Amino acid sequence: MNLPLKSVETSSIADVMAGIGRRAKAAARTLALAPAEQKNRALSAMAAAIRARKVEILAANAEDLADARKAGATAAFLDRLGLTEKGIEGMAAGLDVVRGLPDPVGKVLEAWTRPNGMEIERVRVPLGVVGVIYESRPNVTADAGALCLKAGNTAILRGGSESHRSTRAIQAALVEGLEAAGLPAEAIQLVPTRDREAVGLMLAGLDGAIDVIVPRGGKGLVGRVQAEARVPVFAHLEGVCHVYIDKAADLAMAKEIVLNAKMRRTGVCGAAETLLVDRAVAATHLQPLVAMLLDAGCEVRGDEAVCGVDARAKAASEEDWPAEYLDAIIAAKVVDGVDGAIAHIERYGSHHTDAIITADTANAEKFLNQVDSAIVLHNASTQFADGGEFGFGAEIGIATGKLHARGPVGVEQLCTFNYRIRGTGQTRP
Amino acid sequence: MNLPLKSVETSSIADVMAGIGRRAKAAARTLALAPAEQKNRALSAMAAAIRARKVEILAANAEDLADARKAGATAAFLDRLGLTEKGIEGMAAGLDVVRGLPDPVGKVLEAWTRPNGMEIERVRVPLGVVGVIYESRPNVTADAGALCLKAGNTAILRGGSESHRSTRAIQAALVEGLEAAGLPAEAIQLVPTRDREAVGLMLAGLDGAIDVIVPRGGKGLVGRVQAEARVPVFAHLEGVCHVYIDKAADLAMAKEIVLNAKMRRTGVCGAAETLLVDRAVAATHLQPLVAMLLDAGCEVRGDEAVCGVDARAKAASEEDWPAEYLDAIIAAKVVDGVDGAIAHIERYGSHHTDAIITADTANAEKFLNQVDSAIVLHNASTQFADGGEFGFGAEIGIATGKLHARGPVGVEQLCTFNYRIRGTGQTRP
Repeated sequence: MNLPLKSVETSSIADVMAGIGRRAKAAARTLALAPAEQKNRALSAMAAAIRARKVEILAANAEDLADARKAGATAAFLDRLGLTEKGIEGMAAGLDVVRGLPDPVGKVLEAWTRPNGMEIERVRVPLGVVGVIYESRPNVTADAGALCLKAGNTAILRGGSESHRSTRAIQAALVEGLEAAGLPAEAIQLVPTRDREAVGLMLAGLDGAIDVIVPRGGKGLVGRVQAEARVPVFAHLEGVCHVYIDKAADLAMAKEIVLNAKMRRTGVCGAAETLLVDRAVAATHLQPLVAMLLDAGCEVRGDEAVCGVDARAKAASEEDWPAEYLDAIIAAKVVDGVDGAIAHIERYGSHHTDAIITADTANAEKFLNQVDSAIVLHNASTQFADGGEFGFGAEIGIATGKLHARGPVGVEQLCTFNYRIRGTGQTRP
Repeated sequence: MNLPLKSVETSSIADVMAGIGRRAKAAARTLALAPAEQKNRALSAMAAAIRARKVEILAANAEDLADARKAGATAAFLDRLGLTEKGIEGMAAGLDVVRGLPDPVGKVLEAWTRPNGMEIERVRVPLGVVGVIYESRPNVTADAGALCLKAGNTAILRGGSESHRSTRAIQAALVEGLEAAGLPAEAIQLVPTRDREAVGLMLAGLDGAIDVIVPRGGKGLVGRVQAEARVPVFAHLEGVCHVYIDKAADLAMAKEIVLNAKMRRTGVCGAAETLLVDRAVAATHLQPLVAMLLDAGCEVRGDEAVCGVDARAKAASEEDWPAEYLDAIIAAKVVDGVDGAIAHIERYGSHHTDAIITADTANAEKFLNQVDSAIVLHNASTQFADGGEFGFGAEIGIATGKLHARGPVGVEQLCTFNYRIRGTGQTRP
């Protein structure tokens, strides 16, 4: 339930946001105890409402798009902002996928009995209130709302100001679904003001109401959230992902994986940004890999060895090694074996996702064991860095922090746990 | 390896602390990869060194005590600061206990295979660098250092300025043990300055070197750390623990548990601070419970019903319900059944540890399911809120936050995890 915009004008933003926090926290208790069946009924009704309100959502989106065009938005921005019939069906289908996931709440994660007879269980429970701060993509509204709901959390959503009509139309459909299942409308609230002060208040935690913040967007947004948040944040600032071609790499496999890791989609956080090739196979492997990337339309910025094998390659500068291009550009370098690769990744990497290609199990295990990233792969593409590909069904994002959630953040990661102890009168000696 | 104090005088505190951070981070990689056997050898040598340096440690402690007495420290403060031969043996024995724990690092927490044949493992790995900020108890030096080492982390310890000679003597023994096992001395560093600026720099994370801060001490210290830290914190500000006596409670069991929960040790965070009694059994259970507590020397601050059953009880004010007395004082109140108890705990509790005493399984399950605390117990004392009592061997503290660590923080909670994926050339379609 969101306040109409006009009441924002007549009361302070701080008051409005404090009210949103209070309602989210109050509703969190109901959500935490909601049975799986009720949450799934809501998800089902939400998908139906999204489909039923298709025309309305597209109309709201058209207004947002018109304003953005007037303001001179880039084609890429308009592409992220724009919704299509297919996109709306995709959102509804996403809700169906989340509905089909196992309910994470109440799962006994561990159980043991103490010598005095006390039975201790560690049980998964919801986190509480999740704040989601995102930019122009309106479909994050449905994804984030659904994942938070499935995990028994309430969500406070703050979409980009350019997409405010679209997000409001989508959130209205979600609320219709909540109410159809008898769940509180306050379970998925939208911040009703486009003022940036609201973001600052969310980052301060709304008087302890917000348990975790998930930023979805570019480096500017994520950086601001990480720098200013006074509550925990699940996020990755960047994905500087490496593919290391070991001396024992099969060249055909290396080519397939490198091409996929870099070029399948260049704008995702799991896209490879740096290619490292073992000096021991530079003579045989470097030229075919570099030529393949260049032939595929990828700019290659390399060290001397790389530039030496193909005249089309450009010389890399020191800024290229930590760069996250999110584009058809790759940095490439020859390193001294797996130790050299690990040292390079430790120095320049972002602890997101890194891969080794090799037939040598010992080198593979060394890489998996020593590279301190959320996801490390042997003989597979870095583009598998995705909750769906992990079998999580869906993700709200990928975390590179070390605490609580690391890697894809799905419904299980949107939960915490507590200890439940059953005794028969035990006292502590 | 700590800089001698005089170099602190000649270089800025910021430089000194930055150096500590860099060395801790550099050593963390070695620690993360250290085999269990090597870490255990270090723990063994650390215990031997503590025992061998007993006289030296006691002499340092005597100097600290003399200064504290001169400065007019309270008896309680001197008690926390003072070390005895028995206390030193206890520290060494604690190191032996930690050595005996299973190594948490490298444990496969989950493993599954994707339809495309990729094998995904979630593997426990060290957190990295743990900052520990504590007050006058010098033995925290050994406990915290040992737990961080066992979990493959490096530790930056900042003890209280009043105990600086004692903590330095203990840390020297730990470093002797590290070196005897061939591990870097930088694995357990002590902040060599008593300046409070050093704490501020730790709370800011030492340029990203510190992964988590653990404060050990009173509410003042923990509150400052929670308010100022820019890195994650494992802590509890207070333990306002409740014991709820349900209508189906056996009176004899209720008496035993209440007495233990309140009076076994009144100064620990798991001590009960509030007694809640179901109105349905107030007539039979309230008077014996209140009289028992008063007879045991506990002050009772109650509502009208409580004051009505024993003239020695005092009237509670609104400040008593959220109070953490850490003393022989208890707040007591009649509530309307399990729902009334849950509502009271939700309003006034600190999400630490709460217990229900009842023979009614449905009420017990409702309480365990609905009270949102790190630890909830049925028919057992709140004083079991302790890593040792959970079977964790030892703990560095108890966390009431919801993320990552919740409840006792032992060696497993001082770790994180990553995903290791083994493929055979998979690319993402």
